[in-house]
Amino acid sequence: MEATDVWTLASSALVLIMTPGLALFYGGLVRVRSVVNMMLFSVSAMGVVGVLWILFGYSMSYFADGESGFAGSPFKEFGLLATDPADFIGIGFGAVFAMITTALISGAIADRVGLGSWVLFSGVWATLVYFPVAAWVWGGGWISQLGTWLGTPEVIDLAGGTAIHINAGAAALALAIVAGKRRGFGPGSHKPHSVPLVTIGAALLWFGWIGFNAGLATEVGEAGLILVNTLGAPAAGIIGWIVTDVIRGRKPGVIGAASGAIAGLVAITPAAANLSPLWALLLGLIAGAACAVAIDLKYRLGYDDSLDVVGLHLVAGVIGTLYLGFFAFEDGLFVGGNGGLLLVQAISVFGVMIYSFVVSLIIALVVKMLTGLRVPTQVEEEGIDTFAHGEEAYDYLPDSGATEAVAGPIRSGSAEPVGAGR
Amino acid sequence: MEATDVWTLASSALVLIMTPGLALFYGGLVRVRSVVNMMLFSVSAMGVVGVLWILFGYSMSYFADGESGFAGSPFKEFGLLATDPADFIGIGFGAVFAMITTALISGAIADRVGLGSWVLFSGVWATLVYFPVAAWVWGGGWISQLGTWLGTPEVIDLAGGTAIHINAGAAALALAIVAGKRRGFGPGSHKPHSVPLVTIGAALLWFGWIGFNAGLATEVGEAGLILVNTLGAPAAGIIGWIVTDVIRGRKPGVIGAASGAIAGLVAITPAAANLSPLWALLLGLIAGAACAVAIDLKYRLGYDDSLDVVGLHLVAGVIGTLYLGFFAFEDGLFVGGNGGLLLVQAISVFGVMIYSFVVSLIIALVVKMLTGLRVPTQVEEEGIDTFAHGEEAYDYLPDSGATEAVAGPIRSGSAEPVGAGR
Amino acid sequence: MEATDVWTLASSALVLIMTPGLALFYGGLVRVRSVVNMMLFSVSAMGVVGVLWILFGYSMSYFADGESGFAGSPFKEFGLLATDPADFIGIGFGAVFAMITTALISGAIADRVGLGSWVLFSGVWATLVYFPVAAWVWGGGWISQLGTWLGTPEVIDLAGGTAIHINAGAAALALAIVAGKRRGFGPGSHKPHSVPLVTIGAALLWFGWIGFNAGLATEVGEAGLILVNTLGAPAAGIIGWIVTDVIRGRKPGVIGAASGAIAGLVAITPAAANLSPLWALLLGLIAGAACAVAIDLKYRLGYDDSLDVVGLHLVAGVIGTLYLGFFAFEDGLFVGGNGGLLLVQAISVFGVMIYSFVVSLIIALVVKMLTGLRVPTQVEEEGIDTFAHGEEAYDYLPDSGATEAVAGPIRSGSAEPVGAGR
Repeated sequence: MEATDVWTLASSALVLIMTPGLALFYGGLVRVRSVVNMMLFSVSAMGVVGVLWILFGYSMSYFADGESGFAGSPFKEFGLLATDPADFIGIGFGAVFAMITTALISGAIADRVGLGSWVLFSGVWATLVYFPVAAWVWGGGWISQLGTWLGTPEVIDLAGGTAIHINAGAAALALAIVAGKRRGFGPGSHKPHSVPLVTIGAALLWFGWIGFNAGLATEVGEAGLILVNTLGAPAAGIIGWIVTDVIRGRKPGVIGAASGAIAGLVAITPAAANLSPLWALLLGLIAGAACAVAIDLKYRLGYDDSLDVVGLHLVAGVIGTLYLGFFAFEDGLFVGGNGGLLLVQAISVFGVMIYSFVVSLIIALVVKMLTGLRVPTQVEEEGIDTFAHGEEAYDYLPDSGATEAVAGPIRSGSAEPVGAGR
Repeated sequence: MEATDVWTLASSALVLIMTPGLALFYGGLVRVRSVVNMMLFSVSAMGVVGVLWILFGYSMSYFADGESGFAGSPFKEFGLLATDPADFIGIGFGAVFAMITTALISGAIADRVGLGSWVLFSGVWATLVYFPVAAWVWGGGWISQLGTWLGTPEVIDLAGGTAIHINAGAAALALAIVAGKRRGFGPGSHKPHSVPLVTIGAALLWFGWIGFNAGLATEVGEAGLILVNTLGAPAAGIIGWIVTDVIRGRKPGVIGAASGAIAGLVAITPAAANLSPLWALLLGLIAGAACAVAIDLKYRLGYDDSLDVVGLHLVAGVIGTLYLGFFAFEDGLFVGGNGGLLLVQAISVFGVMIYSFVVSLIIALVVKMLTGLRVPTQVEEEGIDTFAHGEEAYDYLPDSGATEAVAGPIRSGSAEPVGAGR
Repeated sequence: MEATDVWTLASSALVLIMTPGLALFYGGLVRVRSVVNMMLFSVSAMGVVGVLWILFGYSMSYFADGESGFAGSPFKEFGLLATDPADFIGIGFGAVFAMITTALISGAIADRVGLGSWVLFSGVWATLVYFPVAAWVWGGGWISQLGTWLGTPEVIDLAGGTAIHINAGAAALALAIVAGKRRGFGPGSHKPHSVPLVTIGAALLWFGWIGFNAGLATEVGEAGLILVNTLGAPAAGIIGWIVTDVIRGRKPGVIGAASGAIAGLVAITPAAANLSPLWALLLGLIAGAACAVAIDLKYRLGYDDSLDVVGLHLVAGVIGTLYLGFFAFEDGLFVGGNGGLLLVQAISVFGVMIYSFVVSLIIALVVKMLTGLRVPTQVEEEGIDTFAHGEEAYDYLPDSGATEAVAGPIRSGSAEPVGAGR
């Protein structure tokens, strides 16, 4: 193995832990009676998307059709049967990207969607949205060729401002709209049940993000720049969020600080290799402040993006991707460029946003027709964990009487008929 | 350093975190009043086995006696006094394997065994069972030479289907039998107290497993294959477990999903470098489904393997090791082989299983004679954490009145006489 | 990239997760009503120190003034504007060291200091104490030249016995003295609220410590030795602490075991590359036992170092740094040396201790003048999380009535006037 192979291999482990990290981050942000449901969305995405990736996701994502610039054929490298083992480290690295991107969406539908509906949505979404969009950006598809077509610099998207964050954020918006609001949704409703759990999740996310952003770097200077920016932007994001809260007369807390770090990380994701550290700090600061404001929009606009996938990932993803149009080395508008980069960055932002939103909306509507999507009102009100999963997050709470009625082996729910939470 | 040295070094960190990961996984699976006791078993194993490894474990494990094919002498490289520093990275990697293997066993004896008994058992077990068996498989011992002796292909056990999982699983069975059942043991008794804690533990386990399986890989193709299989098999294991639960009319939960991932990981441990990704998916699926069924056996057979060390590690370890006999590259029975590989795989499975079970049984019986092994019934019933450790997992529960009576510095139990939980 | 670049890059991720790990370790050790406040100190240090490091911390830390041997100029490499990208990996590695060191101090002031006061202290402390002391030890400053000046061997401090642990420990003592005791402070008061959280934090700390100690190693033998010693010393530390507790008639618990591991890790930090494994085991054993005793001193001497930053980091840091004077390869007094090494080790210990204590005391006094440092008594008594942060660690506890009155978006505290917890 070469040194860069070792780094991509280590980075695959780093990115792998981001999805359970997300399960914990999201799990901590929901109320105590929806924790199992919420975490199961991320964990099941690791199962479903992991298998699909090996079956045909890699084939679709890495080999965009030359003419259309759309996704590759699922059959070209189906099951990795005809794949060169020398490519396997990169394939593993791609697998964990697909897992986390799909899992990100689930934050939009806390407390009210059954596992079966989510599994159906997530599998189809990975196939029809993630794999193609990944091909557009990294597999030789249209976004990667946009600059050549338009005579501008090529689109810059290091690790997925478009393919990951805008993509998942737009899908989350569509899914939240189709799923509808939770009962009682509004400012101050549905408070996070565990700040330490949120902290653990955010810690694993930042940790893994080093591999996420830098995992394919091969030059020492590039890798180092990505590292410094993946430290600096979230550090500034923490400050941006907290200062914004304090200015607005809100008290500073850990969830805000952690969210500020995530905002900075999302924003730096496309940009970490193309900004000098001071500009990365400014980007993180802006993203932290902007997202602190943006997460309130859902209450005004009336969609229940429960855990702010839109307010964090879509917003910060757009900020980071467009920011490059202004400040990227060489071609940024304010650093000697002529607007060409900004143009292609904007086209890729809107291209991914619209495609992901529309296709996700259709998938969500079809799933809704097939399964109903939401669990019955009674299940939502009395606790989706107890009724749909037969498992409660904590068994030591005085009021958790429900579990006492549940019999069966410790690793699965009771033998009651499935269906309440389909 | 070469690139592969860096990888083994990084992998040592990855495997290191598996043992505290196991502490959290096991800690979440027990009831709230046994969490400290359960976690302390893993943590103390890091202490005891870590020290023994440096003193003589490495010496016993890496240099099997040439004639007998049994363990090496503890004095050959005692204390690493005469050891070439160039070997130290590999020695560190071996140390964390010894820790996690020993800690695995402790899941069999939740709620009822004192720390002193466990420390005694674990130290003797590492010395008489783990170090020798590691030498059999990886240190030039009889298992590694079996193919040569029998004129068949050599046994394949990449990272410890036999030496780790069957070994720990058989020991767990012996120890569970000697320790006897907990009061009230039966289906639905002793439910897990914290699903998030189980999730954190499982996350750290899967994360570390990348290093566990791939840490000694030197070729880029081999490392990549191991990576892809260490992602695919647990992904399929999640699906296998959940689908099995749903088919049986049980509700899907996080603990089942996490257990399915672990089952897939255990099964792929011996096999990750010798199966193509599609066969690895199938193996994970089988292991997830089989273990979902196997963990109920203890209720029928009547041994209290509290946290299913047998149902997960022994069962999936056997499945993965034998599966190679059918599907391994080149020598698998169904891929052009002639049954020779299957034969030696089976011999190594039974060899390790019988040795570990018998010796562990003897050690457990001796410890039982010396210490009683189990804590007094009153301690078990009223809470081993409070009475044996003077420390409760959570100090913010309304009913945790017991701690209020405990005085003393925050980092250790009260000054009450030791002994209740010897 | 070279293999060693990859290792330093991976180590940066390892050390990065230590600070949130510390947030969890400290967060678990406080009472339930101070968890948010405690964790926010570490998280905010990641924000503040991360930004300062990029702005001028690197410049001050890596280029000690040639004549005075003090810190470098903040303007030399301000904002990394004129920095060679080839140095960026090392700069990122340095950033995460600065974060964790600063965060360590916060354990001394649990339950009673507002975020604003801490942010002010931590930013000034990093600038006036950490950056200079890092320059003394690793940036060509006076400690790194002491041996040349005195005609003795050079000071050995691999990864920060002086610059990290003694430095943070002495600052913690000063800050604890200025902050004063918590109400009700005494043996048995203020018990940890979550042992699992402490375990998670300690796990991440040990895991990251592999990168902390070995991240700059370039030779395979040196890296391996550091690895083995960073496993062996904490393993022995666990044993040292537990045995000490048992000898004193205290019951063994997880917090003691975890603290023993940390004690062993602190002690081996300066020494991991210069002790043979057996001497490292002995050092870990001594550190574990000594710290188990040392943490009780605060009750006798009457300073409220809430989470034992002094008892763990200062004490074990001193032990490890001086131990080298006796047992270091070649120059240790008991291994053929002549006392010269011991002399310079002692000078560096006291130099850092006195400088850090005095300057930290002054900073703390100034902050106290400006902000009052402590929150009002009422806030301390009724819960700093609720009143200063508008956020409680857990929202599912029956008695957590306070949160019900709090309205607002989920990621920040209520809109009540800021100030209670300035």
